[in-house]
Amino acid sequence: MTYTLVLLRHGESEWNAKNLFTGWVDVPLSEKGTAEAKRGGALLTDAGVLPDVVHTSLLRRAITTANLALDAADRHWIPVKRSWRLNERHYGALQGKDKKQTLEQFGEEQFMLWRRSYDVPPPAIEPGSEFSQDADPRYADAPQVLTECLKDVLERALPYWEGEIVPDLKAGKTVLVAAHGNSLRALVKHLDGISDDDIAGLNIPTGIPLLYELDEDLQPVTKGGTYLDPEAAKDAIAAVANQGR
Amino acid sequence: MTYTLVLLRHGESEWNAKNLFTGWVDVPLSEKGTAEAKRGGALLTDAGVLPDVVHTSLLRRAITTANLALDAADRHWIPVKRSWRLNERHYGALQGKDKKQTLEQFGEEQFMLWRRSYDVPPPAIEPGSEFSQDADPRYADAPQVLTECLKDVLERALPYWEGEIVPDLKAGKTVLVAAHGNSLRALVKHLDGISDDDIAGLNIPTGIPLLYELDEDLQPVTKGGTYLDPEAAKDAIAAVANQGR
Repeated sequence: MTYTLVLLRHGESEWNAKNLFTGWVDVPLSEKGTAEAKRGGALLTDAGVLPDVVHTSLLRRAITTANLALDAADRHWIPVKRSWRLNERHYGALQGKDKKQTLEQFGEEQFMLWRRSYDVPPPAIEPGSEFSQDADPRYADAPQVLTECLKDVLERALPYWEGEIVPDLKAGKTVLVAAHGNSLRALVKHLDGISDDDIAGLNIPTGIPLLYELDEDLQPVTKGGTYLDPEAAKDAIAAVANQGR
Repeated sequence: MTYTLVLLRHGESEWNAKNLFTGWVDVPLSEKGTAEAKRGGALLTDAGVLPDVVHTSLLRRAITTANLALDAADRHWIPVKRSWRLNERHYGALQGKDKKQTLEQFGEEQFMLWRRSYDVPPPAIEPGSEFSQDADPRYADAPQVLTECLKDVLERALPYWEGEIVPDLKAGKTVLVAAHGNSLRALVKHLDGISDDDIAGLNIPTGIPLLYELDEDLQPVTKGGTYLDPEAAKDAIAAVANQGR
């Protein structure tokens, strides 16, 4: 008896394409991202992996990815659950900033600390500023978030994992989680028991379903899971690692 | 204190465009239907009607309409509930048949009985035939349905209305129901207290949100509700009435 979990990072967004820090800014998929999402659904179909329930963040790039992938896999009709706890990492004052310019302005060391350190958050965003989410009604029931490091993401994602996703898995459902680079890195860190140091080296490509079979103790049968298109995943992981260069 | 309900019939589907009886066959939106769905969302925004929760059928033309309209209205992140009880009327053995040919083959009287009578269902579809839904996993928990008249639709929709939609309304939520010509006619019959005879004359146009303010007893403040684009609704209602001619 194993449980089946599928992680899906949203397709390329308009700001991925423009190389801007996005965080909680709610940008749409690019045309490429739309195609990636549909292909993600086709990969699910080809692998015979049919989600029974989907969990998404509150951001449209993950929501649209789930909608398009599930439609392509003929599973558009399954139950949907959403939570801010699956949102991308809040990028604080970096939201809306160009990654390359930020690298040049602050230097390699600071840039990589903000991007990949486990516990160093970027400077907080100013409430009420252009790219903050203070007034957004979708976060009315969430605590105020002004910046996050990956550790913060893990801490707010875990209660959702335990409270909402694990019960679906234990009910025998194939669970799709459509979310973001960093919220999925946080889940993978937890699942695979990756250390605070080693998680820096983990990148998750857009639009390629990552399949985990979990044993009764929710331990991965295959560490790191299995991408449904391993070759494309390898290439894409290398590309993510080079962002901002 | 009033409750706010919005009914939205899906945009034109590929089979609406081809003038085929659709029922539970899961056809996608046409290009026109996609545009209608987005415009429906813009109408919500313009009217300041912001859904807090959406209920859909299990059919992709309603699901996609909800997805597109809510994205256009910046409400893509709200909770979603789905049920077969909001599905279009099952059209029995007519599913997949051309409306004009059916009219010619069976004559005006029989055709109008099947289309608009309250309690005369079309012949049952043969289980396992091309356009039946016997093997469809989405209906695993539903009773077998082989044909329906409008009365049947009302009888299976009402438990969902009472059990799932009314509680959301009473919690003060603005509720969007994205569904179908006949499941929405059934709800409107119930809301407005339309007689079994008079419901034959009621048509609901695609893609135009129909707003109901309901009083504490869930009675419409304005009988028949208010279309968010009354002129377009008037034209569209006339066109629906002429289908098959």
